[in-house]
Amino acid sequence: MERRGMRPIGVFDSGVGGLTVVKELIRQLPDEDIVYFGDIARVPYGIKSKETIIRFSIENILFLLKKEVKLICVACNTVSSVALPVIKHHFKVPIVGVIIPGVREAVYATQNKRIGVIGTRGTIKSKTYEFEIKQLDPKVKVIAVSCPLFVPFVEEGWIEGGVVLEVARIYLQPLKDARVDTVILGCTHYPILKPVIKEVLGEDVTLIDSAKQVAMEVKKVLAQEGLLNRNHRAKHEFYVSDNPEWFSSLAKRFLGEPVSNVKMVK
Amino acid sequence: MERRGMRPIGVFDSGVGGLTVVKELIRQLPDEDIVYFGDIARVPYGIKSKETIIRFSIENILFLLKKEVKLICVACNTVSSVALPVIKHHFKVPIVGVIIPGVREAVYATQNKRIGVIGTRGTIKSKTYEFEIKQLDPKVKVIAVSCPLFVPFVEEGWIEGGVVLEVARIYLQPLKDARVDTVILGCTHYPILKPVIKEVLGEDVTLIDSAKQVAMEVKKVLAQEGLLNRNHRAKHEFYVSDNPEWFSSLAKRFLGEPVSNVKMVK
Repeated sequence: MERRGMRPIGVFDSGVGGLTVVKELIRQLPDEDIVYFGDIARVPYGIKSKETIIRFSIENILFLLKKEVKLICVACNTVSSVALPVIKHHFKVPIVGVIIPGVREAVYATQNKRIGVIGTRGTIKSKTYEFEIKQLDPKVKVIAVSCPLFVPFVEEGWIEGGVVLEVARIYLQPLKDARVDTVILGCTHYPILKPVIKEVLGEDVTLIDSAKQVAMEVKKVLAQEGLLNRNHRAKHEFYVSDNPEWFSSLAKRFLGEPVSNVKMVK
Repeated sequence: MERRGMRPIGVFDSGVGGLTVVKELIRQLPDEDIVYFGDIARVPYGIKSKETIIRFSIENILFLLKKEVKLICVACNTVSSVALPVIKHHFKVPIVGVIIPGVREAVYATQNKRIGVIGTRGTIKSKTYEFEIKQLDPKVKVIAVSCPLFVPFVEEGWIEGGVVLEVARIYLQPLKDARVDTVILGCTHYPILKPVIKEVLGEDVTLIDSAKQVAMEVKKVLAQEGLLNRNHRAKHEFYVSDNPEWFSSLAKRFLGEPVSNVKMVK
């Protein structure tokens, strides 16, 4: 293994949601060091303009490059769909977003060629999911719906009970009407709401959790480039642009384990 | 009237909520020019740390000072409660926040000396309302509750119907239990939810809408300093740090009239 392989994987998100991706990275790549950056000072990105999301994303990438990462994982669907198509080719470091891995899995999973996509307003407005699905299979019908209240519900910890169930019923009705058999959870917060979404859509609808697919993609890219790390005591570092306490308090919900020693950067 | 009186009133908020204050300023001070700044690129402030809120607020004040405003109205409860006590005395320009005007009215209104306060997490955590109420009347019992989902509900336009009513029931139960007779709507978004809050708390509870009180305070300060503008065709300018389209689309809900020509600043 060349020296470059010993460098960490860089992961960034607008906030805390990207930790669902980190969780899968740790599961599938337990030997890899990870540096995570959450842009808490400017969260959420979902309602921001394309230009602003691009500017913030470039700043986040430059921060991770200073940490000498060997690969960057954009653990945020809004950034992946809005900014990544524009900025990806500016950088030498391999960059993996969360869109294409989920799309590939969904197109593979659907039987009736009807795929639902749920995400933030920014993600849905970008139409990146439609575009990428059609690239793989032009015959698939895509029904894309934004669910902007899901993120605040998850961050407030309202992840079960009548209220969030009712909100999910309202948001997901168009997907039921369209009889989709596969739904992409197009936001890193949504896996937390899987039980609620399952209850509304029924057991027969396949939910595609991008996090799992993304971690597989990261593994594949690292293998291709000969950059996998082995035989190593992995270190996980967490940086935020504001409010480390808030980040820590939410981290357990997303990562499945508590995070200590969150570092603040300006 | 001295020349300084002809300058505009400056108003800033983290986003769009401050427009409920602008609405009242226009109603009570129709002859005054207003320059509004909404920090859309960094909204919301409610979950951010004290240090970050202070830094953002100073930047916003400096922007308004460049516009040669004669008074600054901080149309954001989070900034008013977290940052204003620290930064107010750094500046020569008179600065009016939204806390004290509401407190004064609430202490005047309560009969049973039990006042409820609702606001963002940041506002409630700062305990500024409790402090200011006790300053005026130490015998008043204050019950303060954060309602973090109210802002996303308002911004998504879910301002009536079963879901938001149920959320309000859950949030406001401690106020009902404490038998408050007066509740301060401690966030500029909350006046939009007045019908829902009234339905939960009942007709007998007085809701204090800070916007009205703040505009009265601004008028009083301008009068004291001899800075009132008269006999004038008032101009209202709106600046944002991102996404003017999003701002415009929400503005009508808060201002009661559409806003055109929103200018973008870096």
